[in-house]
Amino acid sequence: MSSIPSKIQINEEGPREGFQFEKAVIPTARKIALIDSLSETGLNRIQIVSFVNPKAVPGMADAEEVVEGFNKKPGISYVGLWLNDKGLKRAIQSQRLEVKGSVSLSASEPFLMRNQKRTFADQLPLQHETMRMYKENGVKVERAAVMAAFGCNFAGDISTDAVLDTIALAKEIAGEHGETLKNVMLADTMAWATPAAVKRLVGAVQDKHPELNICLHLHDTRGMGIANAYAGLEMGVNTFDAAVAGLGGCPFAGHAGAAGNVCTEDLVFMCDEMGIETGVDLEKLMVSARLAEEVVGHPLPGSVMRGGSLRALRQKISTAQAA
Amino acid sequence: MSSIPSKIQINEEGPREGFQFEKAVIPTARKIALIDSLSETGLNRIQIVSFVNPKAVPGMADAEEVVEGFNKKPGISYVGLWLNDKGLKRAIQSQRLEVKGSVSLSASEPFLMRNQKRTFADQLPLQHETMRMYKENGVKVERAAVMAAFGCNFAGDISTDAVLDTIALAKEIAGEHGETLKNVMLADTMAWATPAAVKRLVGAVQDKHPELNICLHLHDTRGMGIANAYAGLEMGVNTFDAAVAGLGGCPFAGHAGAAGNVCTEDLVFMCDEMGIETGVDLEKLMVSARLAEEVVGHPLPGSVMRGGSLRALRQKISTAQAA
Repeated sequence: MSSIPSKIQINEEGPREGFQFEKAVIPTARKIALIDSLSETGLNRIQIVSFVNPKAVPGMADAEEVVEGFNKKPGISYVGLWLNDKGLKRAIQSQRLEVKGSVSLSASEPFLMRNQKRTFADQLPLQHETMRMYKENGVKVERAAVMAAFGCNFAGDISTDAVLDTIALAKEIAGEHGETLKNVMLADTMAWATPAAVKRLVGAVQDKHPELNICLHLHDTRGMGIANAYAGLEMGVNTFDAAVAGLGGCPFAGHAGAAGNVCTEDLVFMCDEMGIETGVDLEKLMVSARLAEEVVGHPLPGSVMRGGSLRALRQKISTAQAA
Repeated sequence: MSSIPSKIQINEEGPREGFQFEKAVIPTARKIALIDSLSETGLNRIQIVSFVNPKAVPGMADAEEVVEGFNKKPGISYVGLWLNDKGLKRAIQSQRLEVKGSVSLSASEPFLMRNQKRTFADQLPLQHETMRMYKENGVKVERAAVMAAFGCNFAGDISTDAVLDTIALAKEIAGEHGETLKNVMLADTMAWATPAAVKRLVGAVQDKHPELNICLHLHDTRGMGIANAYAGLEMGVNTFDAAVAGLGGCPFAGHAGAAGNVCTEDLVFMCDEMGIETGVDLEKLMVSARLAEEVVGHPLPGSVMRGGSLRALRQKISTAQAA
């Protein structure tokens, strides 16, 4: 059992999650405004687009324009998402993004079938193909990504062993191509995680694959996002995906209430109050969160952007006491 | 440090919190419909009204009619709230409620000033008066209630010592009137708590006042409600106040984003998934949560009522697999 980290890394995924999920067309300039706003908050890794088929995901049809248009700030890694060769090539061609590969596997076969129309057996040669594609393009692969790591709307509970085996397979695939994995992302794609499950799975992965740094990708569909992140922190997890204002949702989750990723500013607030460094300025991030609501044109689930930070309140109180 | 309890007690406060907070007039019959719906869920303690000045809280003007009208189910304690002698007499006169007293103190003097226009010094003789009032009316007093136990929008952080001293004072007051306290409710009235603070304060209270059973009353203004409840569970806390669908908010909190209590069905969901018994049927409670939204006429913050339970999903999956 690890102790709570003194510092964490937050991977902001709000722009990509949000633009991909929202039904209304968001003008390219508004997308860029949100990305530029996030660049001012201290976040050092921001996922801004996905290079996917515009017919399948119309909200991402302007991915290239977004990538060309945003104001690139030094010290920040801007990243994109892709699902195939074509998408990877678009990411490389953009020349403004950091391009790193992953061995991305689903821990649930029914989810894979639903999402990509592939069996576990179909997935394997495809993974090798993807690895060769990375090699050919000089893209480094250091990360395993495990989808549906906590449970699946089509398969039910996912056993700890299934996840451990999936990670072992990812290491094997990477190894066959001369790569050594350093990180594993455990994605609660369909919001089956609860704090106890986070502790159980993270503990098992730490025991079985101690060389891998764990990142948690937590969806908030059942309101457990922040509690799950806290359970992760208690297990020593130091890397979290998050989405400003709670933007997003999973288009493949198969039910209406699918909520976005754990809300970045709520996570930063919790860390601030626990003395965990995030490098992010909460007040500035709340400005971005309110902008995100404006950009999508409807309320988003974040709480702290409405409730306000305690730091600001403490300052107000001490100013009033000094007066 | 205690271990996670195998069973918890949930005190449902949604009707009282909600009817008191909502600005639009809710017809008495609709209030009763929500209470009657909650009576079918397995909840065994439901706070349904507050007996307050109808000029100050118009939404509670029909408290007596609500109390007369609801369908009282055996095995359930229906309770009310009052702030003074007049309110207590109304509660007793209603004859349909369980009436128990509390030594209710604020850990923050500025909050007390704002909320009741009293200093700590003013509060003390008043507490003795209240105790005499309870005695005269044959009302048992076994509980201390500590408001603003985690922090205050007007005083800032509240020290652990201030809370421990407040509890000691409550015990002293009760003792002078021949009563022995058994319970203490720690109220995060203005949503300053974070999981680490919950652990710190609960641990200190367990050490200093080990004979008192702790109840947590957690507001969700900054999205920490469920994470705070989880931290409480990890400390062995076995009693929680909660509000169906996340109804309510604190009219005295002094800012716009003040959210209601931690959401009952989200708490029940977390407990179900952790194997902690609540006695509550989650599916039935989600029906009540959706009714609560209908009754107030706008969306409420609960997540599981939208995301759905995992138990239902598991059943659907196993039915599909069997077919």
